[in-house]
Amino acid sequence: MRLALLASAAVLAFAASSARAEEGMWTFDNFPIARANQTLGTNIDQAFLDRVRLSSVKFGGCSAGVVSGQGLVMTNNHCVATCVANLSTPQVNYAETGFTPKSREEELKCPGASAEILTDISDVTERMRKAGEGLEGQAFTQARDAEAGRIETEACGDDAKVRCQVVSLYRGGQFKLYKFRKYDDVRLAWAPEDRAATFGGDLDNFSFPRFAIDAAFIRLYEDGRPVETPIHFAWNADKPTEGEAVFVSGNPGATQRLLTMDQLATIRDVVLPLDQLIASELRGRLIRYSEEGEEQAFIAMDPIVGLENTYKRGRGRMAALIDPGFMTAKAAGEADFMQRYAAANGDGPDPWGALEAIQPTARELYPAMALLEGGTGLGTTSVAGGSQLFAYARTLVRGAQERAKPSDQRLPEFADSRLSGVQSRLFAERPTYPELEQIRLEWWLSKTREWLTVDNPYVATLLGKDSPEGLSARLVESTKLADPAVRRALWEGGLAAVQASTDPMIRYALAVDADARAVRAEWEEKVQAPTDRASEELATARFAAYGDSVYPDATGTLRLTYGLVEGSDVPGQRFSAFTTFAGLWDRATGAEPFAVAPKLLAAKDRIDPNAVMDMAVSTDTIGGSSGSPAINARGQIIGANFDSTVLTQRNAYGYDRAVNRSVIVTTQAVTVALRDVYGMDHLVEELGVSQ
Amino acid sequence: MRLALLASAAVLAFAASSARAEEGMWTFDNFPIARANQTLGTNIDQAFLDRVRLSSVKFGGCSAGVVSGQGLVMTNNHCVATCVANLSTPQVNYAETGFTPKSREEELKCPGASAEILTDISDVTERMRKAGEGLEGQAFTQARDAEAGRIETEACGDDAKVRCQVVSLYRGGQFKLYKFRKYDDVRLAWAPEDRAATFGGDLDNFSFPRFAIDAAFIRLYEDGRPVETPIHFAWNADKPTEGEAVFVSGNPGATQRLLTMDQLATIRDVVLPLDQLIASELRGRLIRYSEEGEEQAFIAMDPIVGLENTYKRGRGRMAALIDPGFMTAKAAGEADFMQRYAAANGDGPDPWGALEAIQPTARELYPAMALLEGGTGLGTTSVAGGSQLFAYARTLVRGAQERAKPSDQRLPEFADSRLSGVQSRLFAERPTYPELEQIRLEWWLSKTREWLTVDNPYVATLLGKDSPEGLSARLVESTKLADPAVRRALWEGGLAAVQASTDPMIRYALAVDADARAVRAEWEEKVQAPTDRASEELATARFAAYGDSVYPDATGTLRLTYGLVEGSDVPGQRFSAFTTFAGLWDRATGAEPFAVAPKLLAAKDRIDPNAVMDMAVSTDTIGGSSGSPAINARGQIIGANFDSTVLTQRNAYGYDRAVNRSVIVTTQAVTVALRDVYGMDHLVEELGVSQ
Repeated sequence: MRLALLASAAVLAFAASSARAEEGMWTFDNFPIARANQTLGTNIDQAFLDRVRLSSVKFGGCSAGVVSGQGLVMTNNHCVATCVANLSTPQVNYAETGFTPKSREEELKCPGASAEILTDISDVTERMRKAGEGLEGQAFTQARDAEAGRIETEACGDDAKVRCQVVSLYRGGQFKLYKFRKYDDVRLAWAPEDRAATFGGDLDNFSFPRFAIDAAFIRLYEDGRPVETPIHFAWNADKPTEGEAVFVSGNPGATQRLLTMDQLATIRDVVLPLDQLIASELRGRLIRYSEEGEEQAFIAMDPIVGLENTYKRGRGRMAALIDPGFMTAKAAGEADFMQRYAAANGDGPDPWGALEAIQPTARELYPAMALLEGGTGLGTTSVAGGSQLFAYARTLVRGAQERAKPSDQRLPEFADSRLSGVQSRLFAERPTYPELEQIRLEWWLSKTREWLTVDNPYVATLLGKDSPEGLSARLVESTKLADPAVRRALWEGGLAAVQASTDPMIRYALAVDADARAVRAEWEEKVQAPTDRASEELATARFAAYGDSVYPDATGTLRLTYGLVEGSDVPGQRFSAFTTFAGLWDRATGAEPFAVAPKLLAAKDRIDPNAVMDMAVSTDTIGGSSGSPAINARGQIIGANFDSTVLTQRNAYGYDRAVNRSVIVTTQAVTVALRDVYGMDHLVEELGVSQ
Repeated sequence: MRLALLASAAVLAFAASSARAEEGMWTFDNFPIARANQTLGTNIDQAFLDRVRLSSVKFGGCSAGVVSGQGLVMTNNHCVATCVANLSTPQVNYAETGFTPKSREEELKCPGASAEILTDISDVTERMRKAGEGLEGQAFTQARDAEAGRIETEACGDDAKVRCQVVSLYRGGQFKLYKFRKYDDVRLAWAPEDRAATFGGDLDNFSFPRFAIDAAFIRLYEDGRPVETPIHFAWNADKPTEGEAVFVSGNPGATQRLLTMDQLATIRDVVLPLDQLIASELRGRLIRYSEEGEEQAFIAMDPIVGLENTYKRGRGRMAALIDPGFMTAKAAGEADFMQRYAAANGDGPDPWGALEAIQPTARELYPAMALLEGGTGLGTTSVAGGSQLFAYARTLVRGAQERAKPSDQRLPEFADSRLSGVQSRLFAERPTYPELEQIRLEWWLSKTREWLTVDNPYVATLLGKDSPEGLSARLVESTKLADPAVRRALWEGGLAAVQASTDPMIRYALAVDADARAVRAEWEEKVQAPTDRASEELATARFAAYGDSVYPDATGTLRLTYGLVEGSDVPGQRFSAFTTFAGLWDRATGAEPFAVAPKLLAAKDRIDPNAVMDMAVSTDTIGGSSGSPAINARGQIIGANFDSTVLTQRNAYGYDRAVNRSVIVTTQAVTVALRDVYGMDHLVEELGVSQ
């Protein structure tokens, strides 16, 4: 432990220790009601929390909120972008025109999409602790994964309408069983023209002022009918007020606030550079590809937007990790915790030392783990460059191998409790674009060879004497996995069918599987398991030192955060709290990405120029919070969170009140769009807006 | 000063203080003869040094050595790649076939190329010091630039056959006047098939073992005839010996070994990330472009190779800056120097503190400076994405503006003493590829907008309401600057012609010039000038502390380094000292980049499989050392330096004996290529090789 070194650093309040003011992505079962009311001058209670929770929806990697009694749900347009792309062709391109069904009957099913609502939370910490007792390395992670699978199966059984998930909170400090009501038929009810949602494009992304109507509606269906949702948010189309209290309820994806300084250095030095450098090259390949023709532009649009979003977020995170002021405050928070820990534990175990000792291995293994297996929980690099066809093949290969074992001996993503989710993603009807697939695979093979080096044995397996260009082209050209029926047959045929398959992508996934599993096993043994162990010790110590005034790192599960409608006046980020349609007309240049969407522009005369489009709020949000309902103190929905500023990206590592601003599209702007631009009268009526 | 903080760090030997063993890129007027002889067991003397110096050639950004009495010069194939590309078309592609003239008459002039030999060195430190006395900021840099221009003009006058250059050594610790004999007619005498020189491509680049014949010959001409060169290296085609002494004489481009830890942190956190991230995107754009067709592949080849080389070097450098062991040793070297400085200077000025105080500004200004003006001396980003057409336009615009002023009031690159070099580059006949130009400009405009942000006033000037795609396409399509006659007319027409020009690229360069000059002025005022001041203080203190056992950072001027033929046995880099042709046949897979060049492969039966291709040597080299003659203790040439391993890239910041290895193509391999593969009998005879 480096107490001596840090003892002299000033002790500043920081996320690493205990939360203050608006900080915190709180679980619903440990929300600081009193503190929030005191900070905001509100008067919320447990009933408020329950209503908000039951009106909050998890939708893929996004969040959403129920806004009517007939299953109508608001989220961001960018959260339905994949659905829109899947429903579109270059000829009928809803991204360009918007999707504006004139009745419920015209609402279209989003392929492979599902949504769920969190209905129950219970504590399973003891069971999980016991399962790992006395074990080390991979045996430890496997025993715990198996126990989680058992708990989930016991609680949810075979019921296709519910999903159970054991959630690790506080990096192993607590384990909770979350139970969700699940909806597998999700239909698109409205999406604006994409340009209305993305005005300013990548340039305005992660910034404010902002002029984007990044909202869309989906509807939950069951048995072919809209789901009855008596508990839902009331729609408030009024102008918001500066300084008013806002609650944001959603599923922030991942934060790393509880990581030690040593762990953060690994992200700064190894994880972000790899992720960002190779993403930047893919970006270049896709941009050039998109310029080759109109169809190419159509195909590349959605991937480029997603990539640029992740990349820009990475730049914001890197900026935080090299900001001396920010990192000094983080270090001070750690020093404070170290001192309390030392006072309480004397010469006990040294979790900081244990984590420090893991870092050289983590740094060494990260490239292979990220490129061959993905899912380190640290970075954004995904296996096979995000190729859908390879993902199908790997799922089929591993699914067959794993299902041949008892559930508790499988890779955790194939435990019985998770199979229905795997299947619905695998069988979904989605278009596949061979050129895009080929670009992704070629890039991935080329970057893997580059980062692991050409003489690496894994690379020898991946490529043999082939080239990334040749191999990727051959695999994409000859595989039949784009056909859902082929995938279904292979899944249902099990291991025998997979092993007998002559599909080249299946053969390839089989050939590289042992290497990828070996990389993962080494990572779990040498990095993940000892990290989990040490993090658990830190979590226990953190409760002892700071009580329940700490909140867990984000894990993609439901959280509630609160804050105030507020502008910003720090260097590099000066703005007032609101933007209006008048501001949009001012910023428009007519050239992309500052051209106003045609239908929106055509409605200019009908739109109140003073209506508020977007607003900035000091709530604590991060990727995954997209689409989160923004709620006032009366429980009415007043907007949907869709972004935060680039300076806010530091909130992966700590909440910084001075710069932290979520960006929210207002219900006022959405009402204007529905009523004055897109003629969605039946939705306006359903929302109860007086016309 | 942070003496207290660093005092406890172990004091290790390091480049920052005084040089040991084989370390050092020594100037010829301060070469440690005795120490080299002692280390190597050799017996060289001043006459050896003089002969080596007068046989050493600077060729563009590369190095080379005279190898016959008729002006024949050996360098690397990659140093003539641009020449080969300029002489080639998709139909007659010398990169593919090799360039194999059967007599001197068939040797072809390299457009725009020149070569020079260093003939005199004299000290001008006092004059330069006096010129800057009492001045600060831009006044300081301008007064010194002006004095350098005066010194150069006084010494070289109008003589087109000589070039004078005031060289700042030890970051302002010394100023020397270098006088060169200059040759403006350089012809290509031989180049192998490009694949023979680049076997292994980007994957084997910066590595060993290596199987590349990265050598080529040029010949110096004057008045249409080969230049007589009585002083030259004797050709030694024998097999080299492990452990033998090697001297490498060349022009290493730039090192940053004398930088403080604070300055290095700016490179790690700001300079390298910007340079590498945007280069990676350009790489992606160019790779995809190269896949669009055969002509595109031809056009993109040379730019991709250059870009990948710079990028991989950047990765090696970043690896050093995040290597705790390496950086601890650097810090220890600084701590030792600080202690000596404090002992000698007491409460005197604090150059470390001054440099630390500059870093926030350097970090803030670097993106604009790098993107709009280039040439920070820190990074690799160049203005306009390396567009040749924009470079012509800027040279014409600034050349006209600056030539209207007295020489000593101009931007230094347009001082009288430098105009002939500017002109010969500007008037050279080189092909221009519009699609490549458009890609470069689009990428540059897009990255500048991204990194400076869309609302930055410089970006407003650069783009107005235009898009990077539209503006770049229009500029490239309509400019006439690809025609050398148009450029010559504008240059000779001076300011009036430039201002009257309707060429869109000229209009554009005029429109953006004030902003770029403002960025440069701010950089010089707030970063460059105070950095120069503080660095000079450190240089003086370094001489006081360590005497002349220190050598200056590389500056692209002639240096001599020495070492031993030696393999390596550190983790991540294990190899013996030599590779042979037998090894090449083993490594070949038949697939790019591991396919053997056709002519080389066809000669397999004629080639001694045990002939040595490449060797590893512990000499201290860096980019710019490419093509440097490798010489044995008898002054015979035994190879040409062409690379170093990726671990060696840390030598930008410090020489690390354990890992530092230069990679050298042997004269034995070149002899094999000339005689057994390419039928260059007249060259074999000229080199005096017994057939």
